[in-house]
Amino acid sequence: MGLLIKNATLVPMDGKKEVLKNTNIYIEENKITHIGELKDDIEVTRVIDGKNKVAMPGLINAHTHVGMSLLRNYADDLPLHEWLTEKIWPVEANLTAEDVYWGSLLSMIEMIQCGTTTFCDMYFFMDEVGKGIEEAGVRGILTRGIIEESGNEDEKLEDTRRLYNNWNGKANGRIKVMVAPHAPYTCSPSYLEKIIDLAKELNTGIHIHLSETKKEVEDSFNEFGKSPIKHVYDLGLFELPTIAAHCVHVDDEDIEILRNMNVSSVNNPSSNLKLASGFAPVDKMLKKGISVALGTDGSSSNNNLNMFEEIHLAAIVNKAVNNDATSVPAIEALKMATINGAKALLWDSEIGSIEVGKKADLILIDMDKPHIYPIHNTISALAYSVQGSDVDTVIVDGKIIMENREIKTLDVEKIMFNAERIAKDLISR
Amino acid sequence: MGLLIKNATLVPMDGKKEVLKNTNIYIEENKITHIGELKDDIEVTRVIDGKNKVAMPGLINAHTHVGMSLLRNYADDLPLHEWLTEKIWPVEANLTAEDVYWGSLLSMIEMIQCGTTTFCDMYFFMDEVGKGIEEAGVRGILTRGIIEESGNEDEKLEDTRRLYNNWNGKANGRIKVMVAPHAPYTCSPSYLEKIIDLAKELNTGIHIHLSETKKEVEDSFNEFGKSPIKHVYDLGLFELPTIAAHCVHVDDEDIEILRNMNVSSVNNPSSNLKLASGFAPVDKMLKKGISVALGTDGSSSNNNLNMFEEIHLAAIVNKAVNNDATSVPAIEALKMATINGAKALLWDSEIGSIEVGKKADLILIDMDKPHIYPIHNTISALAYSVQGSDVDTVIVDGKIIMENREIKTLDVEKIMFNAERIAKDLISR
Ligand SMILES: [Zn+2]
Ligand SMILES: [Zn+2]
Repeated sequence: MGLLIKNATLVPMDGKKEVLKNTNIYIEENKITHIGELKDDIEVTRVIDGKNKVAMPGLINAHTHVGMSLLRNYADDLPLHEWLTEKIWPVEANLTAEDVYWGSLLSMIEMIQCGTTTFCDMYFFMDEVGKGIEEAGVRGILTRGIIEESGNEDEKLEDTRRLYNNWNGKANGRIKVMVAPHAPYTCSPSYLEKIIDLAKELNTGIHIHLSETKKEVEDSFNEFGKSPIKHVYDLGLFELPTIAAHCVHVDDEDIEILRNMNVSSVNNPSSNLKLASGFAPVDKMLKKGISVALGTDGSSSNNNLNMFEEIHLAAIVNKAVNNDATSVPAIEALKMATINGAKALLWDSEIGSIEVGKKADLILIDMDKPHIYPIHNTISALAYSVQGSDVDTVIVDGKIIMENREIKTLDVEKIMFNAERIAKDLISR
Repeated sequence: MGLLIKNATLVPMDGKKEVLKNTNIYIEENKITHIGELKDDIEVTRVIDGKNKVAMPGLINAHTHVGMSLLRNYADDLPLHEWLTEKIWPVEANLTAEDVYWGSLLSMIEMIQCGTTTFCDMYFFMDEVGKGIEEAGVRGILTRGIIEESGNEDEKLEDTRRLYNNWNGKANGRIKVMVAPHAPYTCSPSYLEKIIDLAKELNTGIHIHLSETKKEVEDSFNEFGKSPIKHVYDLGLFELPTIAAHCVHVDDEDIEILRNMNVSSVNNPSSNLKLASGFAPVDKMLKKGISVALGTDGSSSNNNLNMFEEIHLAAIVNKAVNNDATSVPAIEALKMATINGAKALLWDSEIGSIEVGKKADLILIDMDKPHIYPIHNTISALAYSVQGSDVDTVIVDGKIIMENREIKTLDVEKIMFNAERIAKDLISR
């Protein structure tokens, strides 16, 4: 009794063979139970023809803010400070739980359509994101972004504790909850210590923005005499498994700390380029042995949640930055979007590669397209030629949530209608 | 008697209004004859519903090598010299006219599907590209790339003269021919002078690679005591209208020359990043008044011919390079891909914008997609969110060549079959 994907080209991302041509993947319940030649005694309830298709692990968007889709293309081509203070924050101040629900679902549609099966979110009204994940059938980490505001410090910690108790392990284990101090420049040292204690109490990981802009790093040196990374390290934050978003302006000491403390950094190329934050030293971090994952950041600074765009950017931008056409080769960019993302999210024992025993989170890509032909090299094709729109089928936890590009779990029209309605209303509130 | 596009959002790129909501475009024969409110007395033979669609000028790919699609993903993540000498050139040496025919058609399918209506090509067996343009219904500039080889210098000039006589103005004026010295490092000064004389004789423009890599510029200083741009300027090349591909490593004197001589530069962001060539100073060139167009280069160094990717890159990469989130705003990136491309190709009196009297070269983009919603700003959406795969309808010279993503002019399956067949054969020749 199971789902059989037949005669596909498999890109398992298991660290062994890069490409297996014309093979089969057998899924029982929510797990991959067999890869390779078909055995006679399997009971197949459903067959998917894998001809001209690549099967690869579902992509993992390791840093995003899914509620922000409501602000897509609302404010662009502005200096960061003006963008945040005059455009984004005033609108965000008026967001309701219902807004975040519809905005998050819109983002989940977009992510599914581009092959993302798992994401790590930082925002507020995170219960709505949890509901969305349940409905969409995807997998995700909920983190309630904590920005220090006098008066309600404890409230935000309590909200995270409640979130953890209500959601961690829910949706058949597709939801996990971590603790998210927004950044060292929005949380004081003593507040960060409280947040670290909370993470220890809950025995979970931390999701934080670190060293995104040059200004942030300069300010940290001025205020604390050290970099943001050294600062939070000295506070003991890295004693917990940490997802460090951005890590753009990092020096050798920072890189040493990240590596020694086994911190996963998340590269967000579109966002770093669009907001003029700079170029993260991805090649250097990878070569030093840091696990670098990939993310889209929010769709107001991107303006997409398309992991194939990020893969493409990670692979090509670092070559020009390093003046070296061998920097971040295709396979490394694909790792960033799959197994490295799983490691960052503390989920690599279950997802991030296609292996027997792992959860069945995988996507099928239709390679029978003019812009992918001829297929001299499958790995290069995936990193340089394939588009998000080439994703044909998405399977999460053994369930088909998109097939022939049709989403099975969500009412796409209704969600688009509500997102558009709320977006218009938001601007005039 | 004409084609009416009804109730579309128009992005005319005419230098006046950026967006006109809910308007109509009327096309008679191959020209746009009316924009705006419908008149009673028009005779409509065909109506296209423009609801939820953006009409914008067809994109102009101002620098490419369409025959190279056969080598897509054949050799990647290699240093430039090794890539060229050990991988690309040996295979190119064995290309036949028939190969270039099928490879070019494959590229034309891809370009049409991503909204490109006009391209400027540099390759060999250019008659095959001409045949392809006739069949595909697109618009293009044929240029026979001239690399100096002792023994056949005159042959290549003669081939260009013949190409001009056979093809210039053909396909209802959809084809033009220019003269293409490959680069100052592949043509000696005396040979360049002969080529310039030929362009003068034919009264046409020049298409050339200039200052693509740092090494090329250093070599030019070593050999000639000046930059490639100063070198060809001194030879008189810029007395002819010139399409200068790349212009990555240009100094202030170079920029001054390009501006004074009214040279169009063509930015190829994907290719420059992937081959580690560097970052062209696009923002600076635009601010100095140079018309910068946009191109994909060949699909072996990209590995796509997707102008929406190039638009996206032009808009975001320059922000990080200049540490300025206002660099190359969305509208400038769109100009590069439309009207600036038309200027580069000496075609701006006929294409590059949607205006009454111009040729009907335009595309309709389906904006009713989750990854584009909500539409706060149409111009931002086009530059940052829209994908090549959102192009729904393509009209060139008044003819619908793609509708609902279905190409009307070419046998897509047959072309893909032949491209794959030849590609496999090429590697084993
Ligand atoms: Zn973020
Ligand atoms: Zn070129």
